[in-house]
Formats: sequence, structure tokens, C-alpha cells
Amino acid sequence: MAEWCKDLSIAEVADFLKAHDNYTVLTHASPDGDTLGSGWALVHLLRQMGKQANLRCPDPLPRKFSYLTLPQQTFAEQTVVAVDVADDKLLGGLKEEYAQRVELCIDHHVSNVRYAKRLFLNADAAAACECIYALAQVLGAPITPWLASALYTGISTDTGCFRFSNTTANTLRIAADLLEQGADTDNINRVMFETKSRAHLEMERLALEGMEFCFAGKCAILVVTTEMLEQTGCEESDMDGISAIPRTVEGVLVGVTLRQKGPDVYKASVRSHAPIDAQAICKRLGGGGHIRAAGCQIKGDAATAKAKMLEAVKKQLEEQA
Amino acid sequence: MAEWCKDLSIAEVADFLKAHDNYTVLTHASPDGDTLGSGWALVHLLRQMGKQANLRCPDPLPRKFSYLTLPQQTFAEQTVVAVDVADDKLLGGLKEEYAQRVELCIDHHVSNVRYAKRLFLNADAAAACECIYALAQVLGAPITPWLASALYTGISTDTGCFRFSNTTANTLRIAADLLEQGADTDNINRVMFETKSRAHLEMERLALEGMEFCFAGKCAILVVTTEMLEQTGCEESDMDGISAIPRTVEGVLVGVTLRQKGPDVYKASVRSHAPIDAQAICKRLGGGGHIRAAGCQIKGDAATAKAKMLEAVKKQLEEQA
Repeated sequence: MAEWCKDLSIAEVADFLKAHDNYTVLTHASPDGDTLGSGWALVHLLRQMGKQANLRCPDPLPRKFSYLTLPQQTFAEQTVVAVDVADDKLLGGLKEEYAQRVELCIDHHVSNVRYAKRLFLNADAAAACECIYALAQVLGAPITPWLASALYTGISTDTGCFRFSNTTANTLRIAADLLEQGADTDNINRVMFETKSRAHLEMERLALEGMEFCFAGKCAILVVTTEMLEQTGCEESDMDGISAIPRTVEGVLVGVTLRQKGPDVYKASVRSHAPIDAQAICKRLGGGGHIRAAGCQIKGDAATAKAKMLEAVKKQLEEQA
Repeated sequence: MAEWCKDLSIAEVADFLKAHDNYTVLTHASPDGDTLGSGWALVHLLRQMGKQANLRCPDPLPRKFSYLTLPQQTFAEQTVVAVDVADDKLLGGLKEEYAQRVELCIDHHVSNVRYAKRLFLNADAAAACECIYALAQVLGAPITPWLASALYTGISTDTGCFRFSNTTANTLRIAADLLEQGADTDNINRVMFETKSRAHLEMERLALEGMEFCFAGKCAILVVTTEMLEQTGCEESDMDGISAIPRTVEGVLVGVTLRQKGPDVYKASVRSHAPIDAQAICKRLGGGGHIRAAGCQIKGDAATAKAKMLEAVKKQLEEQA
């Protein structure tokens, strides 16, 4: 699709937005803080410019982001812009309606598949919200407290509150500016980083109860069955936090979560600390991923899946630890 | 002690440090990331200036801060400086030896009791490390990666990784500078925010198991007995994290942790969300504190302590919720 997709500078993005009107801003499915923060921020900027603009998300908006919502406007849609959407597949239920007519995509994923007619990509940005902040600067738009909160939401959530290695000096300086412009960081931090559902806490309890340690404490392994999910009412979107638990234990180099996907299928999430290569562990079982976070599928019941995974972990620990 | 304690500007602090030598830098007891980060950073700066300097801490240094340690030097101590020590009581086992001869205190606590002969106090700083960073700027000292890591440690831990409301735009801008100067944020974030001991996780499990909800889920209450502490091997310093759990539950306005201090004594830690006044709850039981975090002692067995506390919570909820 490369010949169809033209790369734009941030100044060209500003010119494009000035020259068009009646916008639909698309976010990705399973929306997170960055796609919603950057999407709503762009809607806000467009309306500041006197344009008509609405946001469309393929999935219902999670309640915790309700402070970001702006009232919808009524107009005949003309221009489609996607934010933080690296692949048209991520448009989910809106793919068929929109995939061929995305005029502009604003993104920070190096993996962007270039499905849009125009692309602004800054792969050094920790969050799409950093791109929208740069756009606001170029537009000379006032950073209202509401806009500051929207942008801070995306930047803080995509960096795990400035803990992940995508956090740069520029990320922190933008966050400083947003705080100064009135971002409601007290509320954002509380809702995003200090609130858990009872279902999530119940799943945490079960996880801590069932976690096992192997190889002199170098590996922690956790099995989450379909029954446990049903019993707790824990949602799909909560499982990321659960998969992170095994690796947080002091002394653990490999943290594994096995999640039941069917009667005899388990999906493994493997996270490691240096020097252990999580990808190499998952490759032994037909999977892949990144050096410190990888995954694979294992057939068999819980005991079989666990045995297969531990065999792979054992080999990797023997080679590297 | 006011007439004895002279307030210094940061430039006067720099002049004082240039004019003296053979330093002992004191930290507070139960050392945390900020007192150790600012203490070691000051030792490093003094040595850069060609001075002799050692750090002394009233308590053993927790293992997780071992990356900050510098080798001790041998010299006859002449000048005593305290960092992040708001009260000479906080010198713990070193109080008797040092309290009367602290030449300079560098601090960010508005509650500083002015026990030192000279005081640099910046109550707007989120961490003492912000003060040491300002000092390094005035001294024109190079921010080495080691120094950047020491200062980042204090700033990130005292702000709960930039989540607490003491975080200012200046805090984030200093963090950006430190990242740029080579602070090892990957390791610091992992050790400080993503690693838990097995004892801590076991206490979390027991806490989640025993947590009860009252008043339509508006209050969560947790009892930690001496037996639970012994059973898990959880340390005093781990309990802060545990006391934070009840308030993190979605819908909870008042989170209470009752911790056994003797056969028939419980120490209550109460944390609230707006609009509930935690201090008012604790005042009903003879305690005090801040509006969203307060404490008190309750006599009686676990059931009695819980009943007394819930009665106070109920009254407060009736008035405010």
C-alpha cells in the first residue's frame, strides 16, 4: 500500500486539517487511554478551529474514560481521520465502513501498515497524544485544561505512568506542560492507576493463591482457567494486569501466565527479566514476540500445558541464567 | 530553636559547602529512596568538589538501594549535613551523637523543626532530591549518569512515580533532565515499582482474602493481625502498600486497615476519596491526620475495634456521602 500512502510532516497535517471539514475521528477497537485521549483531543482541536467533528470508536467506551466524552454534533461526514490505529484490522466493526476512506492517520506505532491515504508517524513518541500535542503547538491552539487532561490521559497510560522504557525526556516535558495547563492529574491518576474492580481484585487473589515457583524461585507460573474467569467476572481487559504479576516477584527471572482458551488449549504469556529471552522460550513451543515479553499456544490440559512450558523455561534458564 | 537556625538560599548552601570539608551526610531512620538518593547524591557532589565525604544512616540500608552505595572514605569528620531529615528525632540511633552539631539541613518538609544551625528548605519541592538537583545547578556540577540515577530515585519514589499530588511541572522537568543525563530508569522503575517480595505478595493474598465491604460497598475494611505478620514474614516497611489496598477498590470511599499492635490494641489507617473526610472519622476515635489519610488507636479485640471503626465510618458517610 506504500504508493497510496503519503507521509506528511506535522505542518502538513495542520494544513490538511485547516483545508477540510466535517470530520469523523476514528479510534482503535478495545479502546485505551491513548486512542481515546488523542481522538477526543483531536475532536476538541478541530472544534476550536470552527470545524465540525465527532469521534467514533468500534467498541463501547469504557466507563472510566467518561470524563473525556464530548457531545456529538450533527453534520454530513466528509473527512475521516484515524488516531493511534496502526492497522485497519484494528478498526474492528468499523473496518468495512471506513478502511478504504481514511484520509489521514496520526500514529506512533513503527508497525503502522500504511492503510491510510496520508500518514503522520512519529515512532519516537511514547503515545499518539504526543503527536496531537505537537499538532496543537503547530496550530497555535490554546491548551485548555480539558485538552490537557485528554492528552495527559494518553501519555500517562501508554507509558504505565512514566515507568515503561518508551518514556523519553520529551514525554516528561510534555507532561510538565500539561500539568501546568491544568490537566486534572489527581483524578486521572486515581482512575487509571489506583482503582481496581472487585472482579479484578478477586482474580488477583486467585492468582496469588495459585501461583507456583520453580527452579529455585527463578520461575513463577500461574494458570487461569475459564472457570476462574467466570467465577470472578473478570474481564478480558483486566487480564493484562494479572499476566504481569508472576514477573513482579523478587528473584523471578521468568513469569508465566497460562490462560485457558478452550477445553484443551492454553495461551501462554511469558515475561522475563534480563538476561532471559522470553521470545526464545516461546519459539521452543511455536510462538514468538519480543525479548522480554512473548507468547505461544499450547495444546493439552492444564497439567500438560504447564509441563511443556516448564520444560521450555528450564532449557532457557540452563542456557542463560 | 528559631534564633539558632539560620535560613540559607541555595547559593549560600553552595558557598557553605565550598568553605568546609570532611563531611558526614546524615539521612533519616527507616531510610527511603529520597533520603538515600539525596544523601548519596550530596556525597557524590562533595567528592566531585575535591572534598572528603561519607554517608551515615541510622538504620541498615535496604538491599534494593544497593546500587546507590559509594565506598566509604577515611578521614576525621568535621562538618555534619542532614538531608531530608525534618526532625532530629528522625536521626533515630544517631540522634544523641549528632543532633546538636548538624551544621546544615537540606529539606523539603514544611514541618521541619529547625534543629540544625542552618536550613535550606524548599517546601514546594516534591523531594529533597529536587533541592540537591538545584544545588548541582548552582555549583555547575556535571550530572553524571550515577548522580542522575541517585536523584531520579528520590524524585520518583517520593512522588509514587509521579502519581502523588506533590508532583509539579518542575518535578517532571527535572526528571526529564535526569533521564537525558543517563539515569538508569529501567532498573530504578523495576526495583522500586515492579518488584515485590514473596512475603509481601503473601500478605496481599491474605489481605484480599479477608477484606470486607460495608455500607453498600462504600467502605472496605481489612484486619491485619500479629499472627498474619508472623505467618507471612512481611516487614513493617511493606505495610504501607497493604494499607493502600482497601481504598483502591472501585466504588470505595473509605478504605480502612486495622493493624494489631498488641493483644488488645489496633492501629487504624483510614484513607478516603472525596468528599469523605478521613481525619473527621479518626477524630471520632481520638486520632487525627490529613483530610484523605488519617489514623487512630482503638482498644479492644479485633471484633470490637472493627465495630467501633465502622460506627465512626457510618456516621461520617451519613453526614457526607
